[in-house]
Amino acid sequence: MRDVSVVGIGQTPVREHWDKPLRILAEEALLEALADAGIERPDAIWIGNMMSGQLSNQENLGALVADYAGFRGVEAFKVEAACASGAAAFRNAYLAVAGGAMDVVAACGVEKMTDTMGGETTAALASAADAVYEGEHGLSFVGLNALLMQRYMHEHGYQRRDFAAFALTAHRNAVTNPNAMFQREISLEAFERAKTISDPVGLLDSAGIADGAAAAVLMPTAMAHAEGLPHVRIRASASATDAVAVHDRRDPLVLDAGVLSSRRAYSQAGIAPTDLDFFELHDAFTIMSALSLEAAGFAARGKGVQLAIDGEIGLDGLVPIATMGGLKARGHPVGATGMYQIVETVLQLRGEAGPNQIEGCRLGMAQNIGGSGANIVTHIFERMN
Amino acid sequence: MRDVSVVGIGQTPVREHWDKPLRILAEEALLEALADAGIERPDAIWIGNMMSGQLSNQENLGALVADYAGFRGVEAFKVEAACASGAAAFRNAYLAVAGGAMDVVAACGVEKMTDTMGGETTAALASAADAVYEGEHGLSFVGLNALLMQRYMHEHGYQRRDFAAFALTAHRNAVTNPNAMFQREISLEAFERAKTISDPVGLLDSAGIADGAAAAVLMPTAMAHAEGLPHVRIRASASATDAVAVHDRRDPLVLDAGVLSSRRAYSQAGIAPTDLDFFELHDAFTIMSALSLEAAGFAARGKGVQLAIDGEIGLDGLVPIATMGGLKARGHPVGATGMYQIVETVLQLRGEAGPNQIEGCRLGMAQNIGGSGANIVTHIFERMN
Repeated sequence: MRDVSVVGIGQTPVREHWDKPLRILAEEALLEALADAGIERPDAIWIGNMMSGQLSNQENLGALVADYAGFRGVEAFKVEAACASGAAAFRNAYLAVAGGAMDVVAACGVEKMTDTMGGETTAALASAADAVYEGEHGLSFVGLNALLMQRYMHEHGYQRRDFAAFALTAHRNAVTNPNAMFQREISLEAFERAKTISDPVGLLDSAGIADGAAAAVLMPTAMAHAEGLPHVRIRASASATDAVAVHDRRDPLVLDAGVLSSRRAYSQAGIAPTDLDFFELHDAFTIMSALSLEAAGFAARGKGVQLAIDGEIGLDGLVPIATMGGLKARGHPVGATGMYQIVETVLQLRGEAGPNQIEGCRLGMAQNIGGSGANIVTHIFERMN
Repeated sequence: MRDVSVVGIGQTPVREHWDKPLRILAEEALLEALADAGIERPDAIWIGNMMSGQLSNQENLGALVADYAGFRGVEAFKVEAACASGAAAFRNAYLAVAGGAMDVVAACGVEKMTDTMGGETTAALASAADAVYEGEHGLSFVGLNALLMQRYMHEHGYQRRDFAAFALTAHRNAVTNPNAMFQREISLEAFERAKTISDPVGLLDSAGIADGAAAAVLMPTAMAHAEGLPHVRIRASASATDAVAVHDRRDPLVLDAGVLSSRRAYSQAGIAPTDLDFFELHDAFTIMSALSLEAAGFAARGKGVQLAIDGEIGLDGLVPIATMGGLKARGHPVGATGMYQIVETVLQLRGEAGPNQIEGCRLGMAQNIGGSGANIVTHIFERMN
């Protein structure tokens, strides 16, 4: 296996892009990433996307995006792993380059969720859950997270307001990110006053649905060196699965796939969680942030929320998360999110994170969660200069 | 890159499986392939599927199938390339093994198309086309193939009945395939009498929609040798894309992605088309068989139909196609089809094709077409004893 690096990144702002269809969003992110790398044409493209068939009547997204971006003929596929589709596309691109089949490959996550009829998006999101045992019974994705949050509060003795720091931190970090959907702070009062979506999940516990695309270009590290390209090295690429239905899990409050995926990544990189300078986690809901911190080894079972209460998740904390706004405030265009996490991790490691820059950071991790923990994809990146 | 072989295959019969959901179909094919290989647990699973979100409200298919097949925790993704999703999953699995990231990997194509309301399946199939320039104007997938067939007849001077040999040959070859949906011959009269679906495409020009799953287990050839496992070697794995919308193509009657994909495959294998003993092509419609034979180098532009008229596509012809019934008579569970083609190619090369065995065959090609030619995935296999 060859050592692989990221040599280019691109992203569209996360918005309600009423004027832009899927193919244009993907094209913009892809071309920006290629221009950033100074690459004219990739050998192949992997597209991460979950809902194009359900919400835009459009499959065959690999060929479509390849053609619209000007690369007709190039090999291209769509990869789906629910909300982890973005990082899944990146992992498949990584495998092709690391294995020696190709030299220059692009991965692009894209999702268009807002140009739909009322309930369509909620119904499509529910297809990330088990259709037979969860979806058909009307259990929406928010509903599933509400059950997890309720159980977490019950077992560990937290109140709803204890989760506030996750949302407040994310919004604070989004203020200076021009690509974030919500570039404003929120107060503890606003968090507490927010209407309940599915008890105990409030509006400000939840990441907003959105449209967007983000992309990266991968290349063997040796080639990036030889061509004098600035690059960020991929130190680990790993993934793992779990039961899709929450009731089937060994323990609903432990993300077993997160534990496995993180362990595999730490083992590849030869590091411990404490070696990481920051962690772009999958804060689709505040409860997911807590479970994610625990699964990745930053807190014991039931202690993830305490880490937030103690202020350790801020830019100067023990484990900075959502450094550019996270899913909560950047917005969560589902199949694109994993690629936004990777792009933001690369920005930090290149020292290009602006006012949110974590000074001197060297190792960052991005972790993308599909469904309520069914498919978890982890990447660790390292600054090379 | 390591040399890779197929060490196990499995398939469900192609049927209207009213009693079996997606996950069970996939599980059955997967477990049969693993048992055939004598493998207990794969390192990863790639699922090929196009329409699970639209027709079964189910995404996150990688994790779901991995869990139901008994492999919770294992890495798993879904790959989509419209009707080429099956071979696309196999290609991604191949890249992981050839590149050295994993040793034993399973690929499984699955589709469930019949347990739906009336027009749902037709609408979902149209998402393989360009939603903006084709689908939204009511152009169904049959409609697109009708336009191509009309143009082919106009340019090259064929009649509708000239396409009959494709359907008759496929049905003849399906008679002894217990997994085929239509195990019966059809007559030229029946072909001519068949009702028109979209002029000039008749009912018997079209592959039937169906449910089914097929799977294969891949392993480095050296490991298969060392473990004494019977295996069929992958001599080439290639793919290429084209514009999704037919009006955007360089020439609507040339499958440029097929030309590219085939050439890449021939180059990898170091062979010419005439070296192949048979060709499992993508006969979703009779016009696709003709275009496919031409793109793969078996006939000049406009001469693909002549090859069928001349009787050269039968089991004892120059280029046997659809040797177990093809899409036409085996049935076409879209995202599974590419894996059925691969499984049937392996059966031929193992000498296990029953009454349809091509004696002494050594090299076979399987080619899977996504959309009306937008994404074409090609594999060449070789018998090893």
